Amino acid sequence: MCIFCKIIAGEIPSKKVYEDENVLAILDISQVTFGHTLVMPKKHADNIIQADEETVKNCISAAKKLAAQITANTGAAGCNILNNCGEAAGQTVNHLHFHIIPRYSDNDSIVIKFGESEKQDLDKVLKTVRGE
Amino acid sequence: MCIFCKIIAGEIPSKKVYEDENVLAILDISQVTFGHTLVMPKKHADNIIQADEETVKNCISAAKKLAAQITANTGAAGCNILNNCGEAAGQTVNHLHFHIIPRYSDNDSIVIKFGESEKQDLDKVLKTVRGE
Repeated sequence: MCIFCKIIAGEIPSKKVYEDENVLAILDISQVTFGHTLVMPKKHADNIIQADEETVKNCISAAKKLAAQITANTGAAGCNILNNCGEAAGQTVNHLHFHIIPRYSDNDSIVIKFGESEKQDLDKVLKTVRGE
Repeated sequence: MCIFCKIIAGEIPSKKVYEDENVLAILDISQVTFGHTLVMPKKHADNIIQADEETVKNCISAAKKLAAQITANTGAAGCNILNNCGEAAGQTVNHLHFHIIPRYSDNDSIVIKFGESEKQDLDKVLKTVRGE
């Protein structure tokens, strides 16, 4: 059983933010910002690509509601909702989860930062992503 | 009309990756990595909190499919799916959208980077986010 499945089963303790039939939300033990929360499906899937569509929809519905709740309750100015798919994307636990990361206007402009964009021939990119 | 609504209406040109009844996906003109794509609902909503649940589900379903397609077609090792909600979170266009950012194992560890996590009293955080 993966570590998140053990948390869902109650075998490992967690700080539970929200739970329903399909989804569990807990505090990330590494708080990137105050209120950093993880939303995961109770049904195991390695990542968003492997998960079935209904599972992903259940997660984003919960994440949407929690984004509103958490920003309101923390006084955050906004939030990021982030899914990392694959180790190269920063996924460290192979159980689908969305990060909700509250953003505060005063101090955390470097919490999630895009690198510089790359100069690309957009028509070449388009043909590639479309598989043409 | 916002700039994304104008793109959806065809008044501003874009590089279309995918389109269905509810959703449009286009290349981001700032390619953070090769294949960087934006998924947006055709129905305007300022952000994920303001959007209705069905609209958000439509977007994530398309993003899930496109994540599989784009990583396969680009040869990416993974991808990030990211929503920025609010200016403090990096949202620059006030029309709900998800970034799909392909990640390549060789060169882009700093594309999206978490800052150092903050030391927090998790019980205090939990009470706050739960509104207790």
